[in-house]
Amino acid sequence: MKKVKIYITLKQGVLDPQGKAVQDSLQTLGYDGVKEARVGKYMELTVEDGENVEKKVEDMCAKLLANPVIEDYEYTIEEGVTQ
Amino acid sequence: MKKVKIYITLKQGVLDPQGKAVQDSLQTLGYDGVKEARVGKYMELTVEDGENVEKKVEDMCAKLLANPVIEDYEYTIEEGVTQ
Repeated sequence: MKKVKIYITLKQGVLDPQGKAVQDSLQTLGYDGVKEARVGKYMELTVEDGENVEKKVEDMCAKLLANPVIEDYEYTIEEGVTQ
Repeated sequence: MKKVKIYITLKQGVLDPQGKAVQDSLQTLGYDGVKEARVGKYMELTVEDGENVEKKVEDMCAKLLANPVIEDYEYTIEEGVTQ
């Protein structure tokens, strides 16, 4: 089994109202050192060993998990995870 | 400026319907090697340099960003980011 960790973020320049809300809430709580907050998604997949796992993960991100028009994604693949 | 990256995941054993939906959708698309999917949140904060940044980030996570009853969080702090 492989553990795939996927990080999805909004592209630079795309408005992030959820991030703005987080920043405002942090400032209300007194954390005024926070100058920007951006919120994205984090996914962990447990994937069977096999051929072309990296290619498949790339496809999954582009087709389903992220919206390539407004989002960037990165992933890491860790080998040898026991389920 | 420091860049803080926060990863929030549901604790082991907490039901993750969004992750289940992702897994089902991936299987529908033919990616049947995916045995589990769990969805979390990823946040990037830009924080001013100052004292006790790590302590403040820990507090922000526990008080606002994560729900410690059902979620775990991890974070990394990168130094010297230009805004």
